[in-house]
Order: sequence, then C-alpha cells, then structure tokens
Amino acid sequence: VRTFKLTVAYDGTDFVGWQRQARDRSVQAAIEDVLMTIEGAPVAIVGAGRTDAGVHAAAQVASVSLQRAIPSDELHRALNATLPGDVRVLQIEDVASGFNARFHAKAKVYRYWMWNGAAMLPALRRFAWHIPQSLDSHAMQRAADLLIGEHDFSAFQAARSDVKTTKRTLTRSALTESRPDGPMSTATAGALLCYEVTGSGFLRHMVRNIVGTLIDVGRGRLAPEELTRIVASRDRAEAGPTAPPHGLTLWRVEY
Amino acid sequence: VRTFKLTVAYDGTDFVGWQRQARDRSVQAAIEDVLMTIEGAPVAIVGAGRTDAGVHAAAQVASVSLQRAIPSDELHRALNATLPGDVRVLQIEDVASGFNARFHAKAKVYRYWMWNGAAMLPALRRFAWHIPQSLDSHAMQRAADLLIGEHDFSAFQAARSDVKTTKRTLTRSALTESRPDGPMSTATAGALLCYEVTGSGFLRHMVRNIVGTLIDVGRGRLAPEELTRIVASRDRAEAGPTAPPHGLTLWRVEY
Repeated sequence: VRTFKLTVAYDGTDFVGWQRQARDRSVQAAIEDVLMTIEGAPVAIVGAGRTDAGVHAAAQVASVSLQRAIPSDELHRALNATLPGDVRVLQIEDVASGFNARFHAKAKVYRYWMWNGAAMLPALRRFAWHIPQSLDSHAMQRAADLLIGEHDFSAFQAARSDVKTTKRTLTRSALTESRPDGPMSTATAGALLCYEVTGSGFLRHMVRNIVGTLIDVGRGRLAPEELTRIVASRDRAEAGPTAPPHGLTLWRVEY
Repeated sequence: VRTFKLTVAYDGTDFVGWQRQARDRSVQAAIEDVLMTIEGAPVAIVGAGRTDAGVHAAAQVASVSLQRAIPSDELHRALNATLPGDVRVLQIEDVASGFNARFHAKAKVYRYWMWNGAAMLPALRRFAWHIPQSLDSHAMQRAADLLIGEHDFSAFQAARSDVKTTKRTLTRSALTESRPDGPMSTATAGALLCYEVTGSGFLRHMVRNIVGTLIDVGRGRLAPEELTRIVASRDRAEAGPTAPPHGLTLWRVEY
C-alpha cells in the first residue's frame, strides 16, 4: 500500500462541493472515479477541507492509499488526462502511510475576493462577490484585525451546526485592496478586495459569515469595534449575512 | 439624436465573436437587442475591433446613436440590468455626434495570456493558453521586440484575407512574466506570461499568429533573430501556428 498527497485546484462553480453526494457532481467523486479505474477497486480519498457548493480551491489537499504500484508521475498524468478541465491535480507526492490530509492539517488559509466597482467584470464573475456600493475598506481592515486570536466563533457559525467546540484560533485575518495585473484586472474604476484568513480550523460558513459582517462594516452599518461585541455575544443573529460562496477560495493547507 | 461611447467588457467563451451573425450568440447582437427595446426601433452599434469567437475584451469600445432622449446613467443601468453576466457595460459617455468607435480609434492594445506550468489552473482556463513545456521567455522577449515599428505583416495575416494594405505600425510589442496576486494566481509552480501589443491597426489573426511564432521561439524551434527574416518573407508559411483564441483579450482602445 502506498499513500499519496494530492494538491488539487478547482473552479467550484459547477460542483455541489468537495464531498461526494448520491447524485450530483462533486470534486471528491470526480477524483475517486478516475482513481477507481486505475486501482480496479473502489477508492476513498480524504480532503483537508470540505468546501461547499460553489467554493473554489487553489490548493486543496487530499490523501489516498492505493494497492496498485504506480509511479506518482504516471498517476499524475493519468489523473489530469481524465479529469474534467475544472479540476486539476497540481502536484502528487509519495508520503508516509498513515498520512491523513484532514487530521494532519495544521492550518488552512482561505481567501475571499470582492470586486468593488459599479459594474462586475465578466472575467471575475465566477470568483468574486460584486459589491457596487462604496465601501470603507480601512474600517473593514480594522474590523478584520479584531478577530485574530483564540475566540468562541459561535456568532459566525451556520445555524444548526453540531460541533464539540466552537473555539477556533485565527493567526491571520486581514483585508487587502489591490488592482492585480492579470487576466482579471482592468483599466476601469474599481478595486479588488481580498480577505485572507488563516486558522487551525473553521466552523461551517465561518469565513462567509465573517465576510458578510465585514461588508456591513464597510457599508457603515456597523462600527469596526463592534466585532468584539459580536464575537462575545456568541449569537449568530448579531453577525452579518452569509456572503455568497463563489467569492471564496481554499487557498492553501499547511502541515 | 445623441451619440454614446460605450466601454464594454466580455468573457468571449460563449460568444461567436463581436460581430452579429444570423443565428449564433454575438456580443454586438446582445447589446443591440437591449438598445432596441429602449429605442423602440432597430439600432446599429459600431465596435472598435471585431473580436473573433472566444476572444475576450477588458475594454472594447462601441459607438451608437439614439433618437430617444435618455440620460446616459439611466441607459447604463438599463443595459447592465438586462445584459447577460458575460457582457458588462463599464462606462457610458455622451460624445459629439459623428463619433465612430471604429474609424476614430487611434490605437488598440491587445494582451495575450499564457500559463506556463505543468497543470492548467482551472481559474485561468478560459483566459489563458496552457503551455506545459518549458519556455525560454528571454528569447521570446527578444523576438517580440523585433516587431516594433512599421512593417508589412503579411506573414502574420490569416490566409485568404483581403485588405488594401498589409502595412501596420506597432508601438509596443513586449512579453512580460508575472505571478499575479489575484483570484487567478496560485501557490504552485508556473508562470503567467503576457504578450502585450499596441498598434494603429491589426490584420486578421495577426496577434494570434505572432503569439504562435513567439511560442516556437520559446520552445527553441526558432531563433529570436529569425523574426526579422519571417517579417521580410511576407509568407504566412514562414511564421508559426495560430495561437488559440481564448488567450486573447482586447485590452484597451485609444482615441
């Protein structure tokens, strides 16, 4: 038995999310189906993060054990030759047996993109949330900063979640504003905002609920300092709305 | 009669190009159809550049004259409220009657994106050409530089074109390499190459034929200096293959 660590990128637009579901198109099933034809038997892969429907990944990590002796570069070629274009395996590494992409992850980094301009750019529409109203990005930066550290993040957890503990530690929580020089940039008025957050773990919808709350701050509905009160309340109703999934990308997983 | 200058962005993936065609989905028809409902009569718009099927625009410019008295900001809102998400009007300006987006254009800027990495990034796949082989980008830069100035570009013109003159002047022709910090960037190995070219006008497929030739240089099939000989030959057979449309974006039009 050999164990592999797969680094996977996907455009989540046309997936129901990472996790395999009975009928719909999931990233996990897309990869497992190809691996099954190589292994000649059912294969189960473990993803570091279960991204929701519409959420993207720049570098999701998955682990898998195979009986069949296949060199990792051959496996890499076989996967990308068969997978649809909206999922790509960026890297495959041979790792010690017992490696589990989910349980051994030390930290995850998410990025949430927002386009703040009058009109949405067509090239950005699958990967960024469009906010046409003017935003106070400095207030949003101050608010984001208040979330760093260990907190009970119940106020930012999806309703009806059932987890042992709602304490999580964020080591980075920052909003940056840029005008990137790439296929998604533009000559026209507008700013690309990026909320980047690093944590040992995240509650369900936590990043999207934080972003929805930061947008309330940016639009002047909340003062930045209120973030501290909202966290302390542990009340979902105190935080802002859930930002849409398509702005979110699982950026990196650290081991 | 009032004349408007429209700045338009589109994701060309699902269009047959700018120009209206009998049946298929074109950008021109998408915009004209909305304008017709506002005008209450057929409307003809003129685009600065007739982009081919699959080619994108960050800032195409179109001109249109309307009889109906409608403020430009109201027209702007009406267009974006009705147009599909892969076309957006970024700006509308009132201009002097007689303004023609095509004939008054002084220069056009195109960008052609290439992703040079083992695996294509799903987020880039609609906007960049994937070149998995290693490329000598310095050789490509030297080759690109040799095209600046006034030349007969017949060697880079699509077969069976019929134009009065094949002389064109390029004021910029440069290849840059970057790793942009946006939704299309990545933590993984690879480089984003961008060929940017500015000219008073372009022959059919000229940019894509130049890029196909630059890639031949990057892969060592041609020496950079041979670009001068290829231009002088005025023979399409001497230049490289036509690069695919999806890497090309009409970046800006200057007046």
